Amino acid sequence: MAKILSSKEESYSQWYNDLVVKADLAENSAVRGCMVIKPYGYAIWEKIRDTLDGMFKETGHSNAYFPIFIPKSFFSREAEHVEGFAKECAVVTHYRLKQSDDQTGLVVDPDARLEEELIVRPTSETIIWDTYRGWIQSYRDLPILVNQWANVVRWEMRTRLFLRTAEFLWQEGHTAHATREEAVEETRQMLGIYADFAEKWMAIPVLKGVKTESEKFAGAEDTYCIEALMQDGKALQAGTSHFLGQNFAKAFDVKFLNRQNQLEYVWATSWGVSTRLMGALIMAHSDEHGLVLPPRLAPIQVVIVPIFRNEEQFSAIRAVAEKMVKDFKACGIRIKFDDRDTHKPGYKFTEHEFRGVPLRIALGPKDLENHTVELARRDTLTKEILPMEGITGHIEQLLETIQDNLLAKAKAFREANIHKVNSWNEFKETLENKGGFLYAHWDGTPETEEKIKAETKATIRLIPLEGDPEDGVCVYSGKPSKQRVVFARAY
Amino acid sequence: MAKILSSKEESYSQWYNDLVVKADLAENSAVRGCMVIKPYGYAIWEKIRDTLDGMFKETGHSNAYFPIFIPKSFFSREAEHVEGFAKECAVVTHYRLKQSDDQTGLVVDPDARLEEELIVRPTSETIIWDTYRGWIQSYRDLPILVNQWANVVRWEMRTRLFLRTAEFLWQEGHTAHATREEAVEETRQMLGIYADFAEKWMAIPVLKGVKTESEKFAGAEDTYCIEALMQDGKALQAGTSHFLGQNFAKAFDVKFLNRQNQLEYVWATSWGVSTRLMGALIMAHSDEHGLVLPPRLAPIQVVIVPIFRNEEQFSAIRAVAEKMVKDFKACGIRIKFDDRDTHKPGYKFTEHEFRGVPLRIALGPKDLENHTVELARRDTLTKEILPMEGITGHIEQLLETIQDNLLAKAKAFREANIHKVNSWNEFKETLENKGGFLYAHWDGTPETEEKIKAETKATIRLIPLEGDPEDGVCVYSGKPSKQRVVFARAY
Repeated sequence: MAKILSSKEESYSQWYNDLVVKADLAENSAVRGCMVIKPYGYAIWEKIRDTLDGMFKETGHSNAYFPIFIPKSFFSREAEHVEGFAKECAVVTHYRLKQSDDQTGLVVDPDARLEEELIVRPTSETIIWDTYRGWIQSYRDLPILVNQWANVVRWEMRTRLFLRTAEFLWQEGHTAHATREEAVEETRQMLGIYADFAEKWMAIPVLKGVKTESEKFAGAEDTYCIEALMQDGKALQAGTSHFLGQNFAKAFDVKFLNRQNQLEYVWATSWGVSTRLMGALIMAHSDEHGLVLPPRLAPIQVVIVPIFRNEEQFSAIRAVAEKMVKDFKACGIRIKFDDRDTHKPGYKFTEHEFRGVPLRIALGPKDLENHTVELARRDTLTKEILPMEGITGHIEQLLETIQDNLLAKAKAFREANIHKVNSWNEFKETLENKGGFLYAHWDGTPETEEKIKAETKATIRLIPLEGDPEDGVCVYSGKPSKQRVVFARAY
Repeated sequence: MAKILSSKEESYSQWYNDLVVKADLAENSAVRGCMVIKPYGYAIWEKIRDTLDGMFKETGHSNAYFPIFIPKSFFSREAEHVEGFAKECAVVTHYRLKQSDDQTGLVVDPDARLEEELIVRPTSETIIWDTYRGWIQSYRDLPILVNQWANVVRWEMRTRLFLRTAEFLWQEGHTAHATREEAVEETRQMLGIYADFAEKWMAIPVLKGVKTESEKFAGAEDTYCIEALMQDGKALQAGTSHFLGQNFAKAFDVKFLNRQNQLEYVWATSWGVSTRLMGALIMAHSDEHGLVLPPRLAPIQVVIVPIFRNEEQFSAIRAVAEKMVKDFKACGIRIKFDDRDTHKPGYKFTEHEFRGVPLRIALGPKDLENHTVELARRDTLTKEILPMEGITGHIEQLLETIQDNLLAKAKAFREANIHKVNSWNEFKETLENKGGFLYAHWDGTPETEEKIKAETKATIRLIPLEGDPEDGVCVYSGKPSKQRVVFARAY
């Protein structure tokens, strides 16, 4: 199997696509730009979703569900918002099909035209704030801390599995607050949760910061984001948290009586991560042998592959393996005994390696004799023989070690790919030859930002949240600057 | 609050709608026929979803995700299927909006017309079987046991919150098998799981059976179903499991090499339950005082309401309450301490009663003195004073008792509303005056079925799975019959 994976160096993009398809994570569907998330890929997404969901609930949020359709007129209410999304909307215009008059096929029934077209949600601020108007009268009704897990549609012209698809799965938090301060605090809190999740679960270190005017969410006052670095030196925006000010409250007329008994517009945030995280996860750790998964998100953490020549050996191994499965499960380890008789051990080894199972145990007649197991690590591709006694505890620790190791590796990679650049030549050369995150001075104008993008395809990924103030001059214009920002080419 | 709930006897339908809205379960949205599921309602749905999901996984199923859009041409492939769904399809025809030429608003961009229209999925057999063609080559690839949690859209003209909405949430299992027998077994297994879930978790007894030709799923060979009885004597179809034969395999050309190395079409099942279950849950147990929830599905099982006159009393009560919360949580009981200082105890009592919290503990200064609590049961509306010692264990048992009591009540109600009728007059009189499930002989023809429906609005809910064979004559036509079937008016 490993052979059928393209070389990462030759074509990173082909390597990625092969990996996603051949590791049974996702595939393209018959519908342009829409993917099928296969069971193994979906099992990883479930771990991501459930973990994040727990973190949201820990911080007081509840889930709810809003309509998939948004009346067209809702979009026009917030000027920037419509500007941002109108060009990629799937539009429902009719509600019925019928047989064509000549009975040769199915056609849209012209008599079933909607009075007002409906947009398949690209994001739900408008329909949700239209709903919140009915939920909020006074400060007693605030805050509203609601999240939605849903599918959304953005009609992208160039799509890539997980990274950019016409339909994707995501969560979108939408909160309503009585004060600006509380809303800003919520925005930052959620950014922190995303960063924590990326580091502790996905083993991906991220930079935290604020987007520039031209990169922020359509309708936000400020967009906070986390940015991760992929192995090809490109950045990937892994999550965003928006402080929406009173924009949507004004657009949908959502006011509340404050404690001083005055009517005031409500303050808002929204924040989201999507199946794009799957793309980040795959690209951050995987190698020429296939997927590498951090143990905390691996649907299967340990697989046992039996090695046998005859039925008698198989049944002796099965007895030991089944005992191990029971012990491991009792410790909360996700383990699978691969007892298929349709495939040989070598095939199974390659398959589980390819699918990124963190640990593999091979169990043969000799192991039974010697009370040992052969244990192989996916992250280091190393093997060792271990006594069967105490194996559960050993593996529990080893899974932690692997999780830590993947994060350490990703951190080291990122450190090696952060470059402070101080001149336009250095900027261009570093970007071309090394890639990575470029810390550079910028004069703060959208004009310069746009020119740099046009010349190099690098964008300002973020203005660091904990940036050291430092006087300097813009690498492009030579005008004064107070702080370095982070440039990169990005997914 | 109770006063604002309409009388169940006067208008069951108004009572239901009031209850759904005022208990914060769901509400209508700005989009015709689409509902907003509010956080409290969604929390109940999450319990339903997670429990069923666990049961599916226990029986070897995995989740996956397929596109929300289905190319129009896919529908025409299976003749009955298209017949069943074409009339209620939301159709996407364009993928872009733009400013109108006179700059007065947003219009659909005529240049962005799709070559082939896309249907928002009303169910996913077609897109999934188109995908399975790529997954299945040989018997080694079978069975495929996949489930999807998703939103679907059916453009219903008359909608009611949870019971019938244009968009709803559901799960749809889609399995592929090498033999007819295995597929039939799967169909029946899933029906069993639905029935189990309804009884053990929702406290709703259900009848199991098979649909008649005219009531079965569009594209199925057989539709199995569970039917529940609501308090107004009407039936509600709570879940269906379809044996699809080779219909979709033939429509999408999905063949496999069997063990004899011959090409054969794959056998299929599909099965689903939806947010309609919320409607069943609400209607089965609730009363004039509001919602009644079975403890196993209640987001909050126990609420503590403090009763105090001053800050000193409140802080003494808080200390005890917080200890209780900790103890209860350790036992896995979902408990909430309602410490809002914005509302009085009386208001809180009514509110929690209205929202169906199974148990309420009132805690005042006297209770602290006497080491007692006042405990109120939602199902019986009874109160008792209990020693604080041992309260956790007592409540654990009581929650089980309430769960059992609700099921017993629902069973007794159903038993009282099952009527064997033997003549056409008896049929009509019983239906009019008593409602419920009518066990009657039927001649097996769609003509008679149709006439009975036209005259009485009663439909054949199911042909019982474990029906006693019994010779008789059709109540309507007088023709011979071998088994009674179950008639009812239905949601």
